[in-house]
Amino acid sequence: MQFELTQEFIEEIEQLIVSKNSVAVEDHFKEMHPADIAEVLDALNFDEAVFVIRLLDSETTSDILEELEEDTRERVLQSLSVKEIAKEIDELETDAAADIIAELPEERKDQVIAEIEDKDHAKDIVDLMRYEEDSAGGLMGKELVAVKENWTVIRAVREMRKQAEDLEEVYIVFVVDEAGELKGRLSLKSLLRTNDKTLVKDVYVPDIHYVKTTDDADEVAQIMQKYDLFVLPVIDQIGHLVGQITIDDVVDHIRDEADKDYQMAAGITDDVEADDSIKELVKARLPWLIIALLGGFLSVLVLNSFNYAMIKYASLFFFTPLIAATAGNVGVQSSAIVVQGLANGSLKGSVWNRLLKEITLSLLNGFILAIILMLIGHFLLSNYISGFDFAMSLTVAISLISVILIASLIGTFVPIFLDKRGIDPAVATGPFITTSNDIFGIFIFFYIAKLLLGF
Amino acid sequence: MQFELTQEFIEEIEQLIVSKNSVAVEDHFKEMHPADIAEVLDALNFDEAVFVIRLLDSETTSDILEELEEDTRERVLQSLSVKEIAKEIDELETDAAADIIAELPEERKDQVIAEIEDKDHAKDIVDLMRYEEDSAGGLMGKELVAVKENWTVIRAVREMRKQAEDLEEVYIVFVVDEAGELKGRLSLKSLLRTNDKTLVKDVYVPDIHYVKTTDDADEVAQIMQKYDLFVLPVIDQIGHLVGQITIDDVVDHIRDEADKDYQMAAGITDDVEADDSIKELVKARLPWLIIALLGGFLSVLVLNSFNYAMIKYASLFFFTPLIAATAGNVGVQSSAIVVQGLANGSLKGSVWNRLLKEITLSLLNGFILAIILMLIGHFLLSNYISGFDFAMSLTVAISLISVILIASLIGTFVPIFLDKRGIDPAVATGPFITTSNDIFGIFIFFYIAKLLLGF
Repeated sequence: MQFELTQEFIEEIEQLIVSKNSVAVEDHFKEMHPADIAEVLDALNFDEAVFVIRLLDSETTSDILEELEEDTRERVLQSLSVKEIAKEIDELETDAAADIIAELPEERKDQVIAEIEDKDHAKDIVDLMRYEEDSAGGLMGKELVAVKENWTVIRAVREMRKQAEDLEEVYIVFVVDEAGELKGRLSLKSLLRTNDKTLVKDVYVPDIHYVKTTDDADEVAQIMQKYDLFVLPVIDQIGHLVGQITIDDVVDHIRDEADKDYQMAAGITDDVEADDSIKELVKARLPWLIIALLGGFLSVLVLNSFNYAMIKYASLFFFTPLIAATAGNVGVQSSAIVVQGLANGSLKGSVWNRLLKEITLSLLNGFILAIILMLIGHFLLSNYISGFDFAMSLTVAISLISVILIASLIGTFVPIFLDKRGIDPAVATGPFITTSNDIFGIFIFFYIAKLLLGF
Repeated sequence: MQFELTQEFIEEIEQLIVSKNSVAVEDHFKEMHPADIAEVLDALNFDEAVFVIRLLDSETTSDILEELEEDTRERVLQSLSVKEIAKEIDELETDAAADIIAELPEERKDQVIAEIEDKDHAKDIVDLMRYEEDSAGGLMGKELVAVKENWTVIRAVREMRKQAEDLEEVYIVFVVDEAGELKGRLSLKSLLRTNDKTLVKDVYVPDIHYVKTTDDADEVAQIMQKYDLFVLPVIDQIGHLVGQITIDDVVDHIRDEADKDYQMAAGITDDVEADDSIKELVKARLPWLIIALLGGFLSVLVLNSFNYAMIKYASLFFFTPLIAATAGNVGVQSSAIVVQGLANGSLKGSVWNRLLKEITLSLLNGFILAIILMLIGHFLLSNYISGFDFAMSLTVAISLISVILIASLIGTFVPIFLDKRGIDPAVATGPFITTSNDIFGIFIFFYIAKLLLGF
């Protein structure tokens, strides 16, 4: 029953738009889910998208706006008047409305807010815009269903009906005291089974999880995931219930964070997608390449400083990419495990235990790799590379173990250090760790070779 | 209001366990959420965890079992008898129960199933165990609330009460026909506002999203995320409603998949965490290091094949780590964007458009990096490195552009190719792409240098 966007469908729609066949276009979109329509519009060009938007009713278009990709939405909003935008905003729930207004150019923000017909709605939206994007306040919506603890169940149901008007669906009913302070929740299950005259305070569930408006979005995600919550109430500094966060917003947050960490590990800053513009992609990718290039110059200088060894020990220079790659790989592995451990809280125990474990692990991996290296060196490479004798292969093997050890310690220590300093440890993965490990690795390699071979 | 696991708390509990103070231990855990207790048990040693489990009632312990980390759970289950496990299973919802039984050793599975008291429950669990882990059937639970379309609302509410017994909370009520075929859902909101005598068929919402038992878990995640669903019904091949998937299970799936991709990019196979055993960590990390080492030997051979250039053009050899690192970084960037694009469906358009875009992007990045390289080469490196003249720096710069171009094409093409072949494209990121790009990069570098410098 899922909609599958096909090239044929897009071409069909484009044909109909070219021939200005509004009725047929409307017909195609009539039964479709707003999220599916948004997907089609993202694939159309801008004028076509605006043509479609103008055909649909504002209840549908507001839902579509919410689902559009940010750049499509930006351009659609540019083509709408302040009044038209205000009308769309009026149809949206407060959290989506606040997010969209936040994307508008400064001068249009106030104009749109002033044009919103429902003044309470406008006030709620303005209220939400105060919060940091990555805080509980930034994630929450103001729409919720709350009943007072000293109401009867029948009165509670009556009030719930009224409040439910604003909400797409009711998943949870909160219980507050006279002052609006959060007390607990009313289970819909218990509501199905309770006598009408019972007081809410006698059947509600106290002890529910909640967050403060200023709490971090990551913390919100962790709590909702750990306790399997679909809806999480948000309170202000004095305990009043001010909003609720639904799991769908948190799912988006989790995916965004995972994407960001993944891209950071791959040396891509900014959240870019395959279909973003060349300019955006250059901006996201070039800085890391420049940093890596500058790091590369250091490795050039390190190698140059050992250039006097070239005549007698040329083959050492053939091994530098192997050593650098191993240092980079080991560093990325170590840092990735630490970054994930920091993110999901599985990194228990002290830093020293963690380092001790990495040392054991590296020595183990290092010895196995060193043995493979000596075997291949002895049986294969010595036939091809002149001057690659046992002493050389032993030298490379011992260096390899040392490099692995140091690389894994750097990979472990750097993210932990960054995290303690309040910097996102994910920065430490990817090009940053590979570049620095390249330099250290090559230096250690040649330094050990110098000690062992005595040049 | 969130529980924060501290070292002090663990030490306090350990003290109490050593002094066999059962009452005090029970007291500490009495008001705690099972997910929090599980977190404490994961941090305790095994005998201590079993000591605590034996103190708590089976309703709590079954919830704790569900939340424990897999290795802790495995060891706790080993210490329990078949009868004890069956009792825990009886308390769990079918999806969690099936997952836990699946983890038991073969010979105990049937014994535990035979001991489950509620035979319908046992039948449902056995039924669920038929499905692939990463399918909709593998994610779903059998517990759900469904009403028939020709019932009155009052009868529906009465039946819902009965069915709700099995469920922790009711979020959605499904509507089926006499044969059990899924027709739609009954909105709790509409239920709050409808007359008791109304027939369900007159108020229910048709056109709901659903999946088949055999659908892929990734597809389930995409649908629930796209349409902001908390609960998704699952039907069998003939349209009968057979189960439901809740968003909390999908959140876990999304996070697991993201973690897996991230680790794959970092060269870590198997899902490992920072606190896993050394053996598991070696198993997850060593294979990639060995592959990279073998690739490293190829780069040694490539360099050796150009060894005759060493006397006249020694400085070329100093640049190999820089070239290799750039090739690796560019390749990882390109492949990461493609892998993410494939995962979230943002990779639209043809492969050729994609490659064309990468070519433009690489040429742009390549030129900028080449200019930086020539400037630094001319003003800085030429002072330090003997024989590093303009011809050399131009050679390195031109090679750099070529290497970046090829590396980005490999990074783009390989994951697309793997995906078309039905192989997880994430394999292509990380060590695989860096290693192959190292080799290609170094070869191209020296080959171009040979052409330009004429050695």
